[in-house]
Amino acid sequence: MGEEMSNKQIILKDYVKGFVKESDMILKTSFVKLKVPKGCCNDAVLVKNLYLSCDPYMRGRMVKMEGSYIDSFTPGEAIMGYGVAKIVDSSDPEFKKGDLVWGITGWEEYTLIKSTKALFKIPSIDVPLSFYTGILGMAGMTAYIGFYEICSPKERESVFISAASGAVGQLVGQFAKLFGCYVVGSAGSKDKVDLLKNKFGFDDAFNYKEEPDLNATLKRYFPNGIDIYFENVGGKLLDAVLTNMRNHGRIAVCGMISQYNLEEPEATSNLMFLITKRIRMEGFLVFDYFHLYDKYLEMVLPLIKQGKLTYLEDIVQGIETAPAALIGLFAGRNVGKQVVVVAPK
Amino acid sequence: MGEEMSNKQIILKDYVKGFVKESDMILKTSFVKLKVPKGCCNDAVLVKNLYLSCDPYMRGRMVKMEGSYIDSFTPGEAIMGYGVAKIVDSSDPEFKKGDLVWGITGWEEYTLIKSTKALFKIPSIDVPLSFYTGILGMAGMTAYIGFYEICSPKERESVFISAASGAVGQLVGQFAKLFGCYVVGSAGSKDKVDLLKNKFGFDDAFNYKEEPDLNATLKRYFPNGIDIYFENVGGKLLDAVLTNMRNHGRIAVCGMISQYNLEEPEATSNLMFLITKRIRMEGFLVFDYFHLYDKYLEMVLPLIKQGKLTYLEDIVQGIETAPAALIGLFAGRNVGKQVVVVAPK
Repeated sequence: MGEEMSNKQIILKDYVKGFVKESDMILKTSFVKLKVPKGCCNDAVLVKNLYLSCDPYMRGRMVKMEGSYIDSFTPGEAIMGYGVAKIVDSSDPEFKKGDLVWGITGWEEYTLIKSTKALFKIPSIDVPLSFYTGILGMAGMTAYIGFYEICSPKERESVFISAASGAVGQLVGQFAKLFGCYVVGSAGSKDKVDLLKNKFGFDDAFNYKEEPDLNATLKRYFPNGIDIYFENVGGKLLDAVLTNMRNHGRIAVCGMISQYNLEEPEATSNLMFLITKRIRMEGFLVFDYFHLYDKYLEMVLPLIKQGKLTYLEDIVQGIETAPAALIGLFAGRNVGKQVVVVAPK
Repeated sequence: MGEEMSNKQIILKDYVKGFVKESDMILKTSFVKLKVPKGCCNDAVLVKNLYLSCDPYMRGRMVKMEGSYIDSFTPGEAIMGYGVAKIVDSSDPEFKKGDLVWGITGWEEYTLIKSTKALFKIPSIDVPLSFYTGILGMAGMTAYIGFYEICSPKERESVFISAASGAVGQLVGQFAKLFGCYVVGSAGSKDKVDLLKNKFGFDDAFNYKEEPDLNATLKRYFPNGIDIYFENVGGKLLDAVLTNMRNHGRIAVCGMISQYNLEEPEATSNLMFLITKRIRMEGFLVFDYFHLYDKYLEMVLPLIKQGKLTYLEDIVQGIETAPAALIGLFAGRNVGKQVVVVAPK
């Protein structure tokens, strides 16, 4: 029958309007049997969650929508997100008790994942396990795909990255530096700017909150214009970037974190530059590219082991801290990849 | 010394703010010697202008700007634009007296073109000469490049074209139909809508002025969404299109005629769909692609001669009519490609 365990869960109270607040999520303790129910599914696993990833895109799942790339969360049920977990029970012979996996799981201590199809096995743990919530998981793949597949980079091009100290931005900047580009990032505090310049090796960085005229700011950092913009924030910054793009520039639209909590999105006025400067602006979702995950690991694992990539995590302890950690993303409170430890092993 | 002739010219009075008016252009008669001045240039030609092309992009040259893809017009001098002309005198042995050419010339009866580099010789005249201001000139190349190079079309995809009865739109729609796409166009009058459906063979068309809710309109014409949008107008329509795009859709940004006369461009609010629907939005300028002109002629000339393409021109007589014809573009007065006859031969 399986052992029955208490299971702390983070429940979405209801669909969210405007800025998401901690009170939109409730901590609840339920009970769970540590067994895949009989007759449930051919490839289900019951997992113990170890690390959870806080990602800006999750805000989009807190509203009711239909026909989007991803389902809305269900009010009254646990929030879902990427995480690292350990198999407790399995109906799929490919996934054995004790195996470590990463993929979409629940914001709770134990989750029944009804299909293993979207799970990735973690082959080795000679890097920190939490890395699979970020640099070796969705954020890493996002940076990799966004930079190499969408930006079409060339050596010595000028790259601008917004939200540059975040999980994706810090990696894009380092990939671009390794590729031979000139890289400038923006972030929302002096400490983050220092990190970008001193820890992540960006050529330069600025605090957008201290720049009253973003158009002039970008002109200062890119007197000859921007070839590649890696868009993580949206809003006013995009208009300033469009004004400062070079001919034949590319904009990879990865995220628009400044917009996710707004009822009415801020509008963009300078799209005429798409024509006059022949700019390609392309949105992408990492979910379309997971078939390239092994190729990514081949590239990134050696870089990590050789110390050629720096990766910063902002780790909080305990599933109770997850709502505040998620909300912190939108206030820019996290420094680096936001991770929640549910259990160390 | 060369014969001295009177030369009617359309002069730009000053840089233009807001909607361009006829009074922003002045008809002036000067005199010109029908000779390339001695010592002027190695590859200059003195041409007699036959047909002039009215194109929306010309509005952009009426404002002072620097570092754009094309120079501003010079106040006090003749307006410049694409046209068909006959060589009267030449310092380039490749271009002989009597040769017909198309390319950038002046809005006047005779023009000294200081370099033949950007001129195209007209090889045969078994099609109307005026076609070289449109279907066999810039508009045709724009439609060709925009559709085949930028839209990445696939058979049976759904294509939406705005300003669809204009010089470029009518051709994009027909190329898309020949390619096997489902094609709907928008235009600004019942007559134009009838043309699109009955003359150009679009699957459907609508008058945007009679549609209070463009989002609902597009849903009606594209219940399964739009794969390809050929953008000629900008403004509000783009937001409605973004809402109705399919996943992995493409937007070729060719023009934004609704915006050219505005001091402050209308803003676009729905760019988040670029991410969630993985849309590629790409601006282009035909000037970058003229090396493909011969390839285009190989495709389009047989289609014209076999009657597989319909091409509609709105021809007015006399250089005096050119300012009104140009302004008519922005009011949607033209039906088809707007051409001005300066001299029949």
